[in-house]
Amino acid sequence: MTTGSSEGRGAAGARLPDRIAFLGFGLIGGSIALALRAAGYTGRLAAWTPAGSDPRAGLDRQVLDAAPRAAAEALDGAGLVILAGPPMAVMAALDQLAGPLRAALARGATITDVASTKGLIVGRAEDLGLPFVGGHPMAGRESTGFESATADLFVDRPWVIVAPDGTAKADLDCVEALARATGAGPITMSAIDHDLAVAAISHLPLIAAAALVESVAADTERWPTARDLAAGGWRDMTRLARGDAEMGGGIIATNARPIASAVRAYRDALDSWLVELDRLMDESAPAVPGPADVERVREKLESARAILESEPRA
Amino acid sequence: MTTGSSEGRGAAGARLPDRIAFLGFGLIGGSIALALRAAGYTGRLAAWTPAGSDPRAGLDRQVLDAAPRAAAEALDGAGLVILAGPPMAVMAALDQLAGPLRAALARGATITDVASTKGLIVGRAEDLGLPFVGGHPMAGRESTGFESATADLFVDRPWVIVAPDGTAKADLDCVEALARATGAGPITMSAIDHDLAVAAISHLPLIAAAALVESVAADTERWPTARDLAAGGWRDMTRLARGDAEMGGGIIATNARPIASAVRAYRDALDSWLVELDRLMDESAPAVPGPADVERVREKLESARAILESEPRA
Repeated sequence: MTTGSSEGRGAAGARLPDRIAFLGFGLIGGSIALALRAAGYTGRLAAWTPAGSDPRAGLDRQVLDAAPRAAAEALDGAGLVILAGPPMAVMAALDQLAGPLRAALARGATITDVASTKGLIVGRAEDLGLPFVGGHPMAGRESTGFESATADLFVDRPWVIVAPDGTAKADLDCVEALARATGAGPITMSAIDHDLAVAAISHLPLIAAAALVESVAADTERWPTARDLAAGGWRDMTRLARGDAEMGGGIIATNARPIASAVRAYRDALDSWLVELDRLMDESAPAVPGPADVERVREKLESARAILESEPRA
Repeated sequence: MTTGSSEGRGAAGARLPDRIAFLGFGLIGGSIALALRAAGYTGRLAAWTPAGSDPRAGLDRQVLDAAPRAAAEALDGAGLVILAGPPMAVMAALDQLAGPLRAALARGATITDVASTKGLIVGRAEDLGLPFVGGHPMAGRESTGFESATADLFVDRPWVIVAPDGTAKADLDCVEALARATGAGPITMSAIDHDLAVAAISHLPLIAAAALVESVAADTERWPTARDLAAGGWRDMTRLARGDAEMGGGIIATNARPIASAVRAYRDALDSWLVELDRLMDESAPAVPGPADVERVREKLESARAILESEPRA
């Protein structure tokens, strides 16, 4: 591997540019930088964030080569620009790159992002005529910021790539090379397929967790008792509601339609449980449930478990 | 500590009887037996289950002294009988103890249980005139059976005790001594207070997890893609739906009314999210959400998080 131009872990010939810039640099951006270094990338890494503290930490740990105060300086000569902030910050960065920062963007540079929603972001980049390929590495954790970043966050995880119509092959190759360099497996799909899938397996669970807290804790008379009895199941089911609210707000606001559809389907599934529960409470039902009552509930739980057990384990 | 009569870990003088019998012996019963041995209990422990395999495993590991084929033999001389099966098995065992097994029950014996619902069970025991004090150790795990049992399962966990009106002090003392001997902290409350609390923090989460699987996997066209992208959040939110469906069926069937009320409150909380989502999708809303839109969602997430962060950590 030669200085200034590096091949990623699993890259078969695809090369990463000599200079990569991050606009936004927290858990995901930081983990990408650490993964690139772990894979032997020796090019220049520069990062900018509004506050600047995470890039300075990256510089101190010698992961980054530069942590300038101005976004334009981070872009200097970068062949790949990674927008690694929350969705609304990515939207704002696209406007900047098409406006005040356009002159700072290197000729032939590729722009990508790592945000959790793709439709609005990719659409905006297309409207602005930017050389943009959307990305979403399917990895994360509850904690945030560069201090939580790890080099192995993306290993063997999917990295969704959303290429607008007319994307140049060089731009697509560059983003795929980035994904592979971190140990992830790139998967190309449309923005809407991505947004519907993550609404189901990621954004609906966030709302389900928050609603669980809201509904249980709203009973202020009973909540203190319930809280004291809560065990592992409650903690698992509410962990997502402990995450970064700013990030969650941006995700939900930029993927409202697919999420609303997922929440409605979820409410329908809860209604099917209420049918079972109401049957158990029916006045004509025996005071003590019989084996047939238990059997119907058991079968419903069993079929949910069968679906889960058919999952490929990550 | 003298042979045949032992004080529990935290017991201030309260004594456990020389012989204890388990009807039902899986994760919870097995963990109680292991905890008693770890606390130095040297009395006789006998266990019976319909299949008999878990008691035999307990005998092989020298945790139990007897694993008889007949429930009546397990009861022989036992001053404490622990009903350690799922809710419906506990209901059936109460009927047996008031009927065919009544003669096998030692004079002065105390009966308790460890099931997840209390109203129906305690009510049944009262109707049958049994010397019964209900119990519910607030601990568990996804895996089941004696092979998953551990001596420290109950350490520093609450152990709810539900004593019917007119309970003899000796019976209550005996069950409290059992809880303390395992390292748990006994908490006395009414059956309905218990059932409402666990409906909120334990049974509703189970239904929320199962409904999540049902609603997402019902979209058979999109489920394979979504499944491949699922990460830690999805696994956390569906872990409860991987549990024992037989156990879950018994719990839900014997606590239908409090659970139905909790599911309705949950559906209301989801509806409050749909209001926010619909506002974001309104035709008069801008195509790209503004800071005020994100702020409303962020505040909603933030208030859920604030409630969680006010929890005492277990």
